[in-house]
Amino acid sequence: MPVAKPIEYEDANAEVRAVYDDIMKTRGSDWINNFWKYLAHDPKTLRRTWESVKEVMAPGALDPLVKELVYVAVSVTNNCEYCIHSHIAGARAKGMSDSMLGELLAVVGMANETNRLANGWQVPVDEAFKVK
Amino acid sequence: MPVAKPIEYEDANAEVRAVYDDIMKTRGSDWINNFWKYLAHDPKTLRRTWESVKEVMAPGALDPLVKELVYVAVSVTNNCEYCIHSHIAGARAKGMSDSMLGELLAVVGMANETNRLANGWQVPVDEAFKVK
Amino acid sequence: MPVAKPIEYEDANAEVRAVYDDIMKTRGSDWINNFWKYLAHDPKTLRRTWESVKEVMAPGALDPLVKELVYVAVSVTNNCEYCIHSHIAGARAKGMSDSMLGELLAVVGMANETNRLANGWQVPVDEAFKVK
Amino acid sequence: MPVAKPIEYEDANAEVRAVYDDIMKTRGSDWINNFWKYLAHDPKTLRRTWESVKEVMAPGALDPLVKELVYVAVSVTNNCEYCIHSHIAGARAKGMSDSMLGELLAVVGMANETNRLANGWQVPVDEAFKVK
Amino acid sequence: MPVAKPIEYEDANAEVRAVYDDIMKTRGSDWINNFWKYLAHDPKTLRRTWESVKEVMAPGALDPLVKELVYVAVSVTNNCEYCIHSHIAGARAKGMSDSMLGELLAVVGMANETNRLANGWQVPVDEAFKVK
Amino acid sequence: MPVAKPIEYEDANAEVRAVYDDIMKTRGSDWINNFWKYLAHDPKTLRRTWESVKEVMAPGALDPLVKELVYVAVSVTNNCEYCIHSHIAGARAKGMSDSMLGELLAVVGMANETNRLANGWQVPVDEAFKVK
Repeated sequence: MPVAKPIEYEDANAEVRAVYDDIMKTRGSDWINNFWKYLAHDPKTLRRTWESVKEVMAPGALDPLVKELVYVAVSVTNNCEYCIHSHIAGARAKGMSDSMLGELLAVVGMANETNRLANGWQVPVDEAFKVK
Repeated sequence: MPVAKPIEYEDANAEVRAVYDDIMKTRGSDWINNFWKYLAHDPKTLRRTWESVKEVMAPGALDPLVKELVYVAVSVTNNCEYCIHSHIAGARAKGMSDSMLGELLAVVGMANETNRLANGWQVPVDEAFKVK
Repeated sequence: MPVAKPIEYEDANAEVRAVYDDIMKTRGSDWINNFWKYLAHDPKTLRRTWESVKEVMAPGALDPLVKELVYVAVSVTNNCEYCIHSHIAGARAKGMSDSMLGELLAVVGMANETNRLANGWQVPVDEAFKVK
Repeated sequence: MPVAKPIEYEDANAEVRAVYDDIMKTRGSDWINNFWKYLAHDPKTLRRTWESVKEVMAPGALDPLVKELVYVAVSVTNNCEYCIHSHIAGARAKGMSDSMLGELLAVVGMANETNRLANGWQVPVDEAFKVK
Repeated sequence: MPVAKPIEYEDANAEVRAVYDDIMKTRGSDWINNFWKYLAHDPKTLRRTWESVKEVMAPGALDPLVKELVYVAVSVTNNCEYCIHSHIAGARAKGMSDSMLGELLAVVGMANETNRLANGWQVPVDEAFKVK
Repeated sequence: MPVAKPIEYEDANAEVRAVYDDIMKTRGSDWINNFWKYLAHDPKTLRRTWESVKEVMAPGALDPLVKELVYVAVSVTNNCEYCIHSHIAGARAKGMSDSMLGELLAVVGMANETNRLANGWQVPVDEAFKVK
């Protein structure tokens, strides 16, 4: 359960509405998901986070679907329930199929396993991997 | 520093050598990286982990480079030094450019940030994201 | 959902009641929050944890509100739902305003992000930061 | 060991130098710590992260020392070696004494312990803590 | 809430049914817990994970109850709600008493605390602990 | 590298020496490992942590070796280098063989993997696992 109430568009001040408007315009959507309605309690963090996410998730050297898959991978590793749901939805909207989700979770699981095997033995980095 | 000594090919038993041989053959390589030389202290885990990694990282619905990027994302989130180095090397070998690495780390950082913003406000999952 | 039933005052043994009494007396309160009612299944851990929390959270070089803010920061990083709720309540009782909560979560988010940027590049510690 | 080489001022392009200049000017300092010299491989992330950190860590409802203590708490929880060193240095520069550091780490340790006790028993949130 | 629907035996394909059959046969049970019904969306991961768990959790140098206690310890540290419930149930089935659970959680809590105290001071490994 | 210097016996005050003496007496040993020499910067935390560890790790419903194995499992999951080394040494001193270590790390790796598979699918807890 949340630690505050969401701030709906009609109750938002001008600063918050400006961000909400930009979110909807950028996404070609007519609604705002809950994440932003809670961040709105701290308008500077709302604005900064939205501007950062918009910049980071834009097409670049990596395509937006790959970026969403990475977002899901991190969220699953950290077990952020909200983020798992919202970014799986985002990835599906960008073309993630059911088989891609299955393989993604398999890689995330395996990486979490081998991370601990490497931790446990405290495996030293190979010379071949070091930056010269 | 490691909690045991690595098991080199010449000191390995037949079970371990069979895995080492398959690793080198599968990769078209003539060396074994340290991770496997420590797992070799537990030959069943060596074999099972290698078979699992081989299956999980093979081309499928996701291509091998995307899988390596996801591996790096998890390893960075967990701060596994060995895994960060070995999977960045693996991703570079599969085509990751410097710009791709920069963007990947930017996404990983942002996801770790918004995971905590969602945790902190305990944002409830939107109805729109729920599986019907 | 919990993995056991809470132990209420009327069902508690003398050892547990003594801790419950001290909690209420120390806080000037007439109720016990759930955390202690589950720890009561292991009376030694109940007593030890209460004594430790009482000592650690007492006024000292850091004031109690700052200590609660730090507690919230850790709980948000680990995503402990119970702890987020109970320590946000504790921080509010000690004077945390809504703006302070907003800024606190912003710092926690940012720290989680830059932790991963530092991990990802494996940034070496500057000479200037080393203890001489 | 790092996964790339640091980008020094004399080798940086104009975009990176502009950020380096602002860091030094803002801090009234004549050097740049390593974190930024690695982020410089991705100039957009360098600029965005610096702008974000500058905004988040500025005086506000929480004072800058408290924000640094929170940064240390998160970095210790995540075990980010670089961040522990750089933010302990930052906190000392803002007035953290040795006793404050000792108490801070005691709170961080205790919070990590009770987070797991709450997780283990899966303690349900008390009605009194819920937002009405 | 789950991100997909569970795959029940009657709706499962032959590959998935073969795993379900082996789970029930191995456990001498007539039902399948939810974990496997979601993994079934990715039949290769279902099969591989089941084979791995069966191998890892079998009696060996460590007895099965100790292995379940370790599984609970990891799941509590990571706060995986499903895993905490299923492995506490598994440990109880193998003989874990209420006092053993209480002590287990006490150790897990203490380890999470001292891990952060060691992180915070960045305590160097003693010569006596190093592998010669 | 550490964030402070260790406090050796000869430089310690009476409060710290009393704890050092009890550690050596309890263990039948003539040296103190580094962990305590750093905690000594905060004598109250030194004393409280030592008293807590002594109580938690004493023989009880779980035997001391099992407790050390659980400590290693948590430390590996969190990747606390110091703790991995010191508690593997502690476990060996209490009878952990090389095969036991291999199996322990295999269980820790597997638990970290399945924790994320359960997170990723957000698997709901089975009715059968719920406390009635």
